[in-house]
Amino acid sequence: MPVGLGPLPVLHPVPGFRLGIASAGIKRAGRKDIVVMEVAEGASIAGVFTLNAFCAAPVTLCREHIQHAPRYLLVNTGNANAGTGKPGMQAAFQTCEALAQLTQVQAQQVLPFSTGVIGELLPATKVIAALPAALDNLDANHWAQAAEGIMTTDTLPKGASRQVDLDGQTITITGISKGAGMIKPNMATMLGYIATDAKVAQPVLQALLREAADLSFNRITIDGDTSTNDCCMLVATGQAAMTEISTTDNADYQQLASAIKSIMLELAQAIVRDGEGATKFVTIQVNGGGNRDECLDVGYAVAHSPLIKTALFASDPNWGRILAAVGRAGVPDLDVERIDVYLDDVCITRNGGRAEEYVEEQGARIMAQEEITICIDLARGDFQETLWTTDLSHEYVRINAEYRT
Amino acid sequence: MPVGLGPLPVLHPVPGFRLGIASAGIKRAGRKDIVVMEVAEGASIAGVFTLNAFCAAPVTLCREHIQHAPRYLLVNTGNANAGTGKPGMQAAFQTCEALAQLTQVQAQQVLPFSTGVIGELLPATKVIAALPAALDNLDANHWAQAAEGIMTTDTLPKGASRQVDLDGQTITITGISKGAGMIKPNMATMLGYIATDAKVAQPVLQALLREAADLSFNRITIDGDTSTNDCCMLVATGQAAMTEISTTDNADYQQLASAIKSIMLELAQAIVRDGEGATKFVTIQVNGGGNRDECLDVGYAVAHSPLIKTALFASDPNWGRILAAVGRAGVPDLDVERIDVYLDDVCITRNGGRAEEYVEEQGARIMAQEEITICIDLARGDFQETLWTTDLSHEYVRINAEYRT
Repeated sequence: MPVGLGPLPVLHPVPGFRLGIASAGIKRAGRKDIVVMEVAEGASIAGVFTLNAFCAAPVTLCREHIQHAPRYLLVNTGNANAGTGKPGMQAAFQTCEALAQLTQVQAQQVLPFSTGVIGELLPATKVIAALPAALDNLDANHWAQAAEGIMTTDTLPKGASRQVDLDGQTITITGISKGAGMIKPNMATMLGYIATDAKVAQPVLQALLREAADLSFNRITIDGDTSTNDCCMLVATGQAAMTEISTTDNADYQQLASAIKSIMLELAQAIVRDGEGATKFVTIQVNGGGNRDECLDVGYAVAHSPLIKTALFASDPNWGRILAAVGRAGVPDLDVERIDVYLDDVCITRNGGRAEEYVEEQGARIMAQEEITICIDLARGDFQETLWTTDLSHEYVRINAEYRT
Repeated sequence: MPVGLGPLPVLHPVPGFRLGIASAGIKRAGRKDIVVMEVAEGASIAGVFTLNAFCAAPVTLCREHIQHAPRYLLVNTGNANAGTGKPGMQAAFQTCEALAQLTQVQAQQVLPFSTGVIGELLPATKVIAALPAALDNLDANHWAQAAEGIMTTDTLPKGASRQVDLDGQTITITGISKGAGMIKPNMATMLGYIATDAKVAQPVLQALLREAADLSFNRITIDGDTSTNDCCMLVATGQAAMTEISTTDNADYQQLASAIKSIMLELAQAIVRDGEGATKFVTIQVNGGGNRDECLDVGYAVAHSPLIKTALFASDPNWGRILAAVGRAGVPDLDVERIDVYLDDVCITRNGGRAEEYVEEQGARIMAQEEITICIDLARGDFQETLWTTDLSHEYVRINAEYRT
């Protein structure tokens, strides 16, 4: 059951960006498992990709093709085309070639994306057979259908949309994402697509995407397992009648960046809310770090601790497990006697021990909530990082024990 | 249900080492929760302790007291006395003082150990009240009772014993251990006690313990959560009529070291076999590493992956999840096209992709076993490391969600 994730909001169409959905029957007959996205000529495209050394064939191809003025994004679910060696690369390229022929562009102008089971060869002929239907279906209003088309173990589609005034124009930013397990993105998560009709130079767009990913997709974790297929793409179609944004030091950039960051955070958090077996949405904030890395080390030690995650599932304010995770995070010369821990606004640990005024009922009240913030103050410096994660429930074990059956 | 862990073997008494058990009613009335161990005068004692920065009060005291010719070890279960600040230190010291008074030694000659719930103050008066009964119970034949006395969520007591001929004498080595959750020891695991009547100089004993811990307790993981209370103690009472071992480069040392390593490995593996919710005993061997750390990084990435652990629970040979974990382990410039993966003797991945001759039935047959070896060859060098771990089952979630209820 997703935590605090409702039906899709209105997803405004983005001029210069159309989406088409079709069924290739990759894993189940009739399932809408193919999404084609068409990008207007002259658009800027930025991408961030998984850092997993075993990245999937489409990720490798995508990294190459993004240099060649991409016009189409081709996504399939049901098969990750990862761990498939040379045949996997050939299959991915064949699907790009086929879409390129149908649309009269170069194969290098097609970006492939796959998600699903690892280690099975992509059935390229099935994908190719579904391409004409996907192209027929292209429509700027098909964001919601595409959000469903990219789902795997997700229980709900995920999307976000904003409109901002920029340079006298109303600019739209719309995005979708998917993911529910194997989630500890390291660059981005499989899969996020965000498009805007703003005009943005590619290097600026790439820098913006990287920064926004570091504040959103790169700050969520469900199970600590970085996927082989993570990709997040940001498209600026440039269809709006505005001056191109070519530097980061102007007001238009700031406004656009702020809206894009907000959308990406919403999309990233939606993945956590729909995390496999999630019954809690947990914000972990680490304050007072001596540097960024130690804040993240502490945050992830807490976020990945199976003992903390099971305590969250049980709504048990077992603060000892939080201290134990902070203590093993590898922070050099950590002075445990300065550490404070809060559950929402309740101080449970002060100076490394149970806070004097704390009574268990206060902790129990917070832990019973669906949304909880664990705030840890290291009192060593001014750095601060925030992560989002879930609990560890019976349902997580069931989903992942039964995934291939 | 423990995996391949039977009843305790015969635990030979060690001359110069006696054990007494009593009930202090710390968590439950009547439970045998106090173990006192008496060490003959002149013994050598070595210890390794948790690296968790939030180490428990008794660990801090123990590190100090071990310098002062310890005569008694005092263990309680039901309360970890961790995260308890100055009052916790005082409570731990009070129990040492009380035992010292009863036995006419210095308080600094008592080593305290605690295991149980974190964050609750140790009820020192209850512990102290039980000390006379524990002392009355001291007996060289009480190893099995002590193995039960130190249990927490363990389902079975854990012990091992060997006799070797050394310098014309029959030397005994006997040890016990406990632990089932919050297990990723980083120095040792809470708790291991090994005693021998061999005569060994303290610096040699300490070096031996460190080396043996690195091959045993420091190579097991159940949930990746390093405890605040891990301790492993090695006592050489020196009661045997033999020449003291004062260097590592002689045959007696080698023989003793080999027996002690073998006992510690058995005790460490017993902890994994009795891991919380364990249905599998899994050996992870990483070969061909460029150095020790990258072997361990890969091994722990696999051992801690919730996706691999749930696949193990489900007996699903989902090798894609193994590749994904290897790929995210952070090994620099990893050439994934050289990596082979075996399940026992079945090659499932060759050169980074599914092995051509592999059929799923082979993998399924291995995964159905209770004991499984996952062997990963990185083909980058000559380093090799082995770890032991368990699967992630519904039972793990249940035990840890309900721990404090």
